[in-house]
Amino acid sequence: MSFPPIRPELAGIEPYGAPQLDVPVQLNVNENPYGPSEACLDDIAAAVCEAARDLNRYPDREFSALREGLAAYLNTDGGVGLTADNIWAANGSNEVMLQLLQAFGGPGRTAISFAPTYSMYPEYARDTHTTWVAGKRREDFALDIDAALGLIEAERPHVVLLPSPNNPTGTALPHDAISVLCEALGDEGLLVVDEAYGEFRREGTPSALELLPTHRNLVVSRTMSKAFAGAGLRLGYLAADPAILDAIRVVRLPYHLSTVTQATALAALRHADELLGKVDELRKERDETVGWLREKGLQVADSDANFALFGTFADRHAVWQGLLDRGVLIRETGPDGWLRVSIGTADEMNAFKNALTEVMKEQA
Amino acid sequence: MSFPPIRPELAGIEPYGAPQLDVPVQLNVNENPYGPSEACLDDIAAAVCEAARDLNRYPDREFSALREGLAAYLNTDGGVGLTADNIWAANGSNEVMLQLLQAFGGPGRTAISFAPTYSMYPEYARDTHTTWVAGKRREDFALDIDAALGLIEAERPHVVLLPSPNNPTGTALPHDAISVLCEALGDEGLLVVDEAYGEFRREGTPSALELLPTHRNLVVSRTMSKAFAGAGLRLGYLAADPAILDAIRVVRLPYHLSTVTQATALAALRHADELLGKVDELRKERDETVGWLREKGLQVADSDANFALFGTFADRHAVWQGLLDRGVLIRETGPDGWLRVSIGTADEMNAFKNALTEVMKEQA
Repeated sequence: MSFPPIRPELAGIEPYGAPQLDVPVQLNVNENPYGPSEACLDDIAAAVCEAARDLNRYPDREFSALREGLAAYLNTDGGVGLTADNIWAANGSNEVMLQLLQAFGGPGRTAISFAPTYSMYPEYARDTHTTWVAGKRREDFALDIDAALGLIEAERPHVVLLPSPNNPTGTALPHDAISVLCEALGDEGLLVVDEAYGEFRREGTPSALELLPTHRNLVVSRTMSKAFAGAGLRLGYLAADPAILDAIRVVRLPYHLSTVTQATALAALRHADELLGKVDELRKERDETVGWLREKGLQVADSDANFALFGTFADRHAVWQGLLDRGVLIRETGPDGWLRVSIGTADEMNAFKNALTEVMKEQA
Repeated sequence: MSFPPIRPELAGIEPYGAPQLDVPVQLNVNENPYGPSEACLDDIAAAVCEAARDLNRYPDREFSALREGLAAYLNTDGGVGLTADNIWAANGSNEVMLQLLQAFGGPGRTAISFAPTYSMYPEYARDTHTTWVAGKRREDFALDIDAALGLIEAERPHVVLLPSPNNPTGTALPHDAISVLCEALGDEGLLVVDEAYGEFRREGTPSALELLPTHRNLVVSRTMSKAFAGAGLRLGYLAADPAILDAIRVVRLPYHLSTVTQATALAALRHADELLGKVDELRKERDETVGWLREKGLQVADSDANFALFGTFADRHAVWQGLLDRGVLIRETGPDGWLRVSIGTADEMNAFKNALTEVMKEQA
């Protein structure tokens, strides 16, 4: 046996993660381009300083104040009467999803989604020994409800992971799809609607949060990484029936959310108006970018998120590399031939457009 | 099927964690009683404020500066030529251990330890579907090396978890035990020496870090929660062969250490002299407490940690409750009849002694 004795199915696998390159225009991991204001930074510093007086003590294992703050926030964006009893959080949506699969997936159980979708999902399944089955989306990346119902019937999954808007396509889920899937799953399975990019949805697109009172097997997750401009904070959370939270508590590592994380997240919530204040601008920039790409003759998926999937290119890697050579980093992801660009500032999007125009000329 | 569809083996299990009670004298979770100084708090606040300027960006996935800082620190306390390439960290030793078992344990594999020992170990095994086998320690809580070798021969474990000093007994591992076990495991298994309380070891007790150059299957973990007075920080770490780190990278959730955690931990490392400055005082207080308990006619395990296991009591719960009624919270853990007290300030230990004297009179 070779050293070290890693599980054989993990041997030789590249760790997940986009390249972290030092490039002027970073449009590859769907970050919010706007950092916090001085006022927000001051509040974060003061809150952390105060909380750190007890740094020698373990944090509040139940992070009660943070759960209250997150519930109050969600009730302003689709949530209906949510309280702290409905809220769970962890170090990024990553950890939230891992905990869900630890509690409800695992050996002998199945989780499903529909491709193309978020590329971490199969990793959560692998790391919890949950069988992973991926159905297919329609050509336009919308969910094919009949096919989804068929897969649920065939696999009887305990967990269905569905992002809305979907990553990397930007496609949102309609309410009726969520309801039909929840009913098909019944008490045997959970539908996890991953609204990591939920705040960027277009006018008229609803949030799955509205359906929580109707379906007790529905879980809606959010993150402070995207609209909240807190990717560095690592704070993912979900809203669900309290019985689901009690199940997660069995598998959560005790004290998983540090004192400093709790204090920083609470400070960020106090500045929600500021941090979320750029969402409208980013939505406009997104719609503008989608329009521009289509004018260039490219296909672009309708997007309710802060990114756009566009293509198709005979050699997408060459296009990605051409952009990188011009200081613009985007993401080589999604179906073959497609590329994903995050929505940055107006200046960043201009740099992207100029670079893409050059690369497309070069390739032609 | 009842709702929610939690895995059947998890149903009805109480989440792990000592009671978080608001009591004047908290001697139950082995925290360091001394919080950070104003100078340290100011530095933490300034560091977090500076780091939070990029809070909209994902953190350094490889937390390179923190790994360098931790390597430099370990080289002052037993480490031999460690570099960032030898260091891994996560949100508490909890997550470090989970990652180790995800990479090296799992279905069809076995992890072992020797009871009485840390009560979270079986939970890490359960949550990774690793078979858990616990051998027994000797009557004096020292490791029985022959029995340990026998269990390794019988079970061929991929991971051996051994705390030194052991929790809840305080018992350290001698170097020869570590070497013999590493050799017995060979390339098939890792010996993880959990030195969460390592800095509290008595004069003359070595750190397993010294043996890292000799055994490539040795992993030594530490935490900033205890001697470093950073339980609220949630920063556990390990030193090992770089090939072991590469295996962990496959299962770690990307960006698991937040920008804020990295900045706070680095600030704490800059104040290592101050934060660790109370270790000597706590060691003296521990030895004094052990002596006092023995004078009371109680059995006390030799301790290299910041706690003492003492007993035995016909009704330990009554003693625990009697102390709690007097405002002193200790931990009902360890073998039947024993109790564990963390070492606090001199005042806190006096409160503990006065309360225990009363309770023992009452019980007599």
